[in-house]
Amino acid sequence: MATHKLLLLPGDGIGPEVMAEVRRVLAVIERKGLLAFEIDEDLVGGSAYDVYGKAISDEAVAKAHAADAVLLGAVGGPKWDGVAYEHRPEAGLLRLRKDLELFANLRPAICYPALADASALKRELVDGLDLMIVRELTGGVYFGEPKEITDLPNGQKRAVDTQVYETYEIERIAKVAFELARVRGNRVTSAEKRNVMKSGLLWNQVVTATHAQGYEDVKLDHMLADALGMQLVRAPKQFDVIVTDNLFGDILSDVASMLTGSLGMLPSASLGAEDPVTGKRKALYEPVHGSAPDIAGKGVANPLAMIASLAMALKYSLGKPDLADTLDRAIAAVLADGYRTGDIYVEGAKRVGTTEMGEAVAAAF
Amino acid sequence: MATHKLLLLPGDGIGPEVMAEVRRVLAVIERKGLLAFEIDEDLVGGSAYDVYGKAISDEAVAKAHAADAVLLGAVGGPKWDGVAYEHRPEAGLLRLRKDLELFANLRPAICYPALADASALKRELVDGLDLMIVRELTGGVYFGEPKEITDLPNGQKRAVDTQVYETYEIERIAKVAFELARVRGNRVTSAEKRNVMKSGLLWNQVVTATHAQGYEDVKLDHMLADALGMQLVRAPKQFDVIVTDNLFGDILSDVASMLTGSLGMLPSASLGAEDPVTGKRKALYEPVHGSAPDIAGKGVANPLAMIASLAMALKYSLGKPDLADTLDRAIAAVLADGYRTGDIYVEGAKRVGTTEMGEAVAAAF
Ligand SMILES: CC(C)[C@H](C(=O)O)[C@@H](O)C(=O)O
Ligand SMILES: CC(C)[C@H](C(=O)O)[C@@H](O)C(=O)O
Repeated sequence: MATHKLLLLPGDGIGPEVMAEVRRVLAVIERKGLLAFEIDEDLVGGSAYDVYGKAISDEAVAKAHAADAVLLGAVGGPKWDGVAYEHRPEAGLLRLRKDLELFANLRPAICYPALADASALKRELVDGLDLMIVRELTGGVYFGEPKEITDLPNGQKRAVDTQVYETYEIERIAKVAFELARVRGNRVTSAEKRNVMKSGLLWNQVVTATHAQGYEDVKLDHMLADALGMQLVRAPKQFDVIVTDNLFGDILSDVASMLTGSLGMLPSASLGAEDPVTGKRKALYEPVHGSAPDIAGKGVANPLAMIASLAMALKYSLGKPDLADTLDRAIAAVLADGYRTGDIYVEGAKRVGTTEMGEAVAAAF
Repeated sequence: MATHKLLLLPGDGIGPEVMAEVRRVLAVIERKGLLAFEIDEDLVGGSAYDVYGKAISDEAVAKAHAADAVLLGAVGGPKWDGVAYEHRPEAGLLRLRKDLELFANLRPAICYPALADASALKRELVDGLDLMIVRELTGGVYFGEPKEITDLPNGQKRAVDTQVYETYEIERIAKVAFELARVRGNRVTSAEKRNVMKSGLLWNQVVTATHAQGYEDVKLDHMLADALGMQLVRAPKQFDVIVTDNLFGDILSDVASMLTGSLGMLPSASLGAEDPVTGKRKALYEPVHGSAPDIAGKGVANPLAMIASLAMALKYSLGKPDLADTLDRAIAAVLADGYRTGDIYVEGAKRVGTTEMGEAVAAAF
């Protein structure tokens, strides 16, 4: 059996705790003889800064390049609020995304039936919700230059960020969205602000042109990003795949994740291009939630988003969609059995900590 | 009695229909001898383009400068989808905002008790909701240069938008937020992406510094814009005043407006700086909703957001906060009496059209 190289980057806050539960599930997979792993671990974020003085070491980046999949916990926390901008914890994550060219960020928003009542939205609006946000991840205002704060002669400051998109960047993310739609509900909604932004105008044109190049079987709609934000709250089930830029994707996917009842539940995959020779693609998997410093180290964090991120890795990087399904079903079963960490606790459920939740999933797997 | 100069710009789609109901209320105010108006009307958006070949005429802009308050309906519609970028309907609105330097966009999100059940959110999360989004309106990515699409040597295109903020722009909008908070719940939440954007970093620093210059009595929090999007959906009542930039404000205020049950209900005010001599400020009032071309001309549009925009004008431009309150109470009374346009209709209510709704408010006033 081929060995899969995994790099684990637990990061900050609750990252190490939830990553420990991924290790538990990986051990079960190996024990059952389903896959073999070569597992390495390194630092990212504030914990890397504390050791190396920067948010990720070159060595860790090199390991990420060599891995079949990177699993990342979370970065950041108030401890590093005073750190210089270029060394802040987030810089480690952003460097990984950029260096590995992980341009396609897949953020499913799924409402587990057992959790529908935990949503802020009325049950009928979210029950059965299953949408996928495809967020462009290596372009836009996150990386465009100039990006600087300068001193003006009048003693004031001037801050500039630059949103840049080139045709090929929009084309390749549109293709990812169309391909994904084909194995889902066959509908794509593209969101931008073409009425205000030139990059929105180009985005709209390139998505339309890409659609005409062999994706006509997929239904394509365009929606202004502000209107889409509204529609997400009003009637989220109208959507199948949403494709949008880096910054809109950041906000809209957070709004979408909250619809499902708990952020602690949602995974994400960040994918690079397929190598034309090996068919392999670089990939990083991480929960949508943050490092939750307020509950770090207490053993109460919800590990399900991190475990669901491993399921995405099984599907998109390790060639095991069947195992991914089994793992997803194990998560759903544990929830149906009433296991709940504090963030999703409801009256009458079995309140468990991070470890028990991980053990329950491992047992149900 | 001094005469107040009003400029009405009905615009496109349902704009003219809802503006007619503002005229009705203005007539009642005059008939009662409460205020005297000098009312002018002009074109903006697609309807201006059809006549002048541009989205607003210089003459209309001059009238807006001279007016005590501008009331605008809505701009845009599929009819003008093919129009060149610089002449699209939105350009008329954006030019007004920029030329009049209307940097402070106030967007209240209020949940009328009579409508709480129409919200996508559970009743207890929105009942009594009353938050105010203060959106910076003349800076950021909306107006920064370069803003262009260029051809690359490889046949591809490159689109650029530029987010720019200078210290004074952030300072003045922060002051508006703090002042407003003092006559409300005394809390301000400032939202940006300081972990990714240099403009977010400067925004954060300047808001903090402004707070320290005499606004320490107001409670100030900072929240990342993506996290704020989530919190708006999870627990909107935690907020009092939210201050944020032009683009984040665009999306977050649309999300917030949807929480209240109907977009058709919400007004907005766009204010300039106070003239140090006259104490007057330029101002434009418009509903948050769009031109709704699908229902335009059918007499079914909800005029309440437009009428509530007039209430904001009475409060912020015409020195009549008491009249504004009376008008707001008339709107609430009509809703409590069961009057509903189609967008907010529920079983058992009195279904009315645009005109009857306007008449009902005028009668209750
Ligand atoms: C941590 C931060 C840099 C990051 C982002 O803004 O992309 C996060 O919010 C996310 O959505 O993954
Ligand atoms: C019509 C459009 C240009 C405008 C904006 O993006 O500001 C609208 O969405 C708004 O929020 O007022």
